[in-house]
Amino acid sequence: MARTASLSGFPEWLPQERLVELHVLDTLRKTFELHGFSSIETRAVETVGQLLRKGEIDKEVYGLSRLQDDEGEASRSTTTDKADKADPNALALHFDLTVPFARYVVENAGYLAFPFRRYQIQKVWRGERPQEGRAREFTQADIDVVGDGELPFRYDVEIALVIAEALSALPIPDFRLRINNRKLAEGFYRGIGLTDTAGVLRSIDKLEKIGEGKVAELLKSELGASDEQAALALKLATIRTEDTSFVDQVRALGVTDDLLEEGLSELQQVIEAAVQRAPGKVVADLSIARGLDYYTGTVVETVLVGHEQLGSICSGGRYDALASKGNRKFPGVGLSIGVTRLVSRILSQELATATRAVPTAVLVALNNDDSWSAAQDVAAQLRGRGIATEVAAKAEKFGKQIKFADRRGIPFVWFTDDDGKHQVKDIRSGAQVDADPASWSPSEEDLHVRVITA
Amino acid sequence: MARTASLSGFPEWLPQERLVELHVLDTLRKTFELHGFSSIETRAVETVGQLLRKGEIDKEVYGLSRLQDDEGEASRSTTTDKADKADPNALALHFDLTVPFARYVVENAGYLAFPFRRYQIQKVWRGERPQEGRAREFTQADIDVVGDGELPFRYDVEIALVIAEALSALPIPDFRLRINNRKLAEGFYRGIGLTDTAGVLRSIDKLEKIGEGKVAELLKSELGASDEQAALALKLATIRTEDTSFVDQVRALGVTDDLLEEGLSELQQVIEAAVQRAPGKVVADLSIARGLDYYTGTVVETVLVGHEQLGSICSGGRYDALASKGNRKFPGVGLSIGVTRLVSRILSQELATATRAVPTAVLVALNNDDSWSAAQDVAAQLRGRGIATEVAAKAEKFGKQIKFADRRGIPFVWFTDDDGKHQVKDIRSGAQVDADPASWSPSEEDLHVRVITA
Repeated sequence: MARTASLSGFPEWLPQERLVELHVLDTLRKTFELHGFSSIETRAVETVGQLLRKGEIDKEVYGLSRLQDDEGEASRSTTTDKADKADPNALALHFDLTVPFARYVVENAGYLAFPFRRYQIQKVWRGERPQEGRAREFTQADIDVVGDGELPFRYDVEIALVIAEALSALPIPDFRLRINNRKLAEGFYRGIGLTDTAGVLRSIDKLEKIGEGKVAELLKSELGASDEQAALALKLATIRTEDTSFVDQVRALGVTDDLLEEGLSELQQVIEAAVQRAPGKVVADLSIARGLDYYTGTVVETVLVGHEQLGSICSGGRYDALASKGNRKFPGVGLSIGVTRLVSRILSQELATATRAVPTAVLVALNNDDSWSAAQDVAAQLRGRGIATEVAAKAEKFGKQIKFADRRGIPFVWFTDDDGKHQVKDIRSGAQVDADPASWSPSEEDLHVRVITA
Repeated sequence: MARTASLSGFPEWLPQERLVELHVLDTLRKTFELHGFSSIETRAVETVGQLLRKGEIDKEVYGLSRLQDDEGEASRSTTTDKADKADPNALALHFDLTVPFARYVVENAGYLAFPFRRYQIQKVWRGERPQEGRAREFTQADIDVVGDGELPFRYDVEIALVIAEALSALPIPDFRLRINNRKLAEGFYRGIGLTDTAGVLRSIDKLEKIGEGKVAELLKSELGASDEQAALALKLATIRTEDTSFVDQVRALGVTDDLLEEGLSELQQVIEAAVQRAPGKVVADLSIARGLDYYTGTVVETVLVGHEQLGSICSGGRYDALASKGNRKFPGVGLSIGVTRLVSRILSQELATATRAVPTAVLVALNNDDSWSAAQDVAAQLRGRGIATEVAAKAEKFGKQIKFADRRGIPFVWFTDDDGKHQVKDIRSGAQVDADPASWSPSEEDLHVRVITA
């Protein structure tokens, strides 16, 4: 089953692989809805102005232009020679679901009840160099809660717990939510006299990639940090605890700052709740920075244990200033699961498989070419009880029809003889029994395709 | 709820509208899977060469280019100034799901079991002028069966019946599948001496738009038809029957041709089965031509009765030559439901609505600020039985918490007093009763959001 995508960075699944993806998507949807999140979708395109509002990410955006734009009816955006980042009205594909969601909230604020809880499962596109775990087209599954004016911190705690529950329900290895808080980090940097806190965060974000030594040099050369300041900033980033003991470890560094205190208290609340309600799934990890600069408090990345090199499979955090309408602010907190990254890993390592390749449980065989309509009647009866059924298209020899079912992975073949006597054969065991189309059912296990972990 | 999309042609739904769309999508998926169709998705992009292989439609295609393409690592396609239809390797968004499916079948032929039955529900994009029923981004739900080398005609019959069943399960007005056959039409034109049969079809396709007189003129001026030939071609297009009597009506026109006979026989089989298995849902309509030229036999359009001006809500047909790999041919037959067109109509005319605006059935109120964790325990018990539940974020006055539930459309509020006594209130009736979180459930009607027709 290992195939190469015909277009690098644009993965496509075979039908039996898609069943695994569908199982992941269905499981996420069910968990999100059980927690009261509403489904929405936003259009795939945003204006370039909207997408680049927060900067930093323009390199990854796919712009759109109509191939044959000669009708004089195009909007201004498509009359340029090229989808152009200089034209804020040009259209481009969204690169995440948070920025479009913020735009949706502002546009529809008059129709939504706040705090607004939504989940959103859609494709996003980034023109990055494709590599393992990094595609150009991929599916994200996001949950967010957005408030009108204010949003209680408790939602930061809740979002982390919902995601831990959702991930626990998937056929994936054990995972860890690594949580930090921007206020904690920024307050700390301020407290030691480094005022360009965003700059420090950006350097710290490179820790896993370039190592401590080089980050220290960056802090000194680019941000004017002293040896001591650089050492303290790095020291903070080494703190990682499974309980709230990080608080004492930070305090032991002897830095005082109001924002730092606020961040410590917030992170403490998240970790406290997680220790109780999602034990072993969450760690306080003060190295987590998150590149995107719209986060203002809680920040989260998630690793699969034993698959750390895959990168974060679920990220996000608190953003207090992403969406606003005049003086009205819509603070939010949310997390985004990298569905394609997870499914790719499940498939490539065969962590889970579908019990069969097709939804079909029963193939109704044809006794002769005139029996197609009678076979459809049998099929309709079975479908009426939720049994996925197809009818053979040709009255080939029974051996051939059985082979057809076998090749497609259909477990049962139904026969009706000229006298109207019905039998059903389990082609895996060969057992064939009399059966009534009005009452026969396969076992629970065979009724629907299931996805089972290896 | 009537809102204008902020970007013309890119509709977005409010959460309660999305529930209607989800119901439509879930219903289609369930029907398709009951009939043994496998889910697949294809990437949103194809190469321009692939998309324009069959010509005619380049005006509608959105090309892609990376906004900031300065890294020297881009594929050849993105190094041009503009997504360019002259460059067959350039990327563009797909405009339907049939062409991508054909490409997918050819690429994955070695991994698929034929005849391959698939459904595919995805967004497609067309850069057309937006108008009622015609968006630039919209969702299609397709089913197709593709064979390897040959595909029995019976699948043409089956596909029509599956679609009739799927549409019947939706909260939409009555509908009619209008079915014709290209072989019938082309054989007839050939039989009366008009050899540019594709040209005649293109003219006939304009019948509803420009009327008989102008089509006759087109046939004469552009295709060299005589008065009599034009009259006969138009006469054929007026035939419309709910049973197989169209056969005699065609024969009465006195034209003989082998291909015509083949087409008559095929269409007769479809109509015969439909009269029996989907009575009243299907008509033989010999005016149906379908613009796209990859169809080779059965062609279908579908109207909502009383909403004919909306255009076809489900179209497709037989294509014997869309997909091939060397000498290997993959003939197919399929139909595509215009989900966005249907959902737009359902919403704008309020043909169906969701019983509530959110998935949540129960809000667990907070007695005081320290009761959040205990409230989460109650919520977890309810969720364990499939009851969608959220927990209040703040211990406001009960009246305020009830108002919060009311504003969000949540029917039940759960209270736990300081002694651990539980009660649940139906905020619609005001009835409040003792309840055990380990066993209480709402009625079947309130358990999940349902979509009901007006």
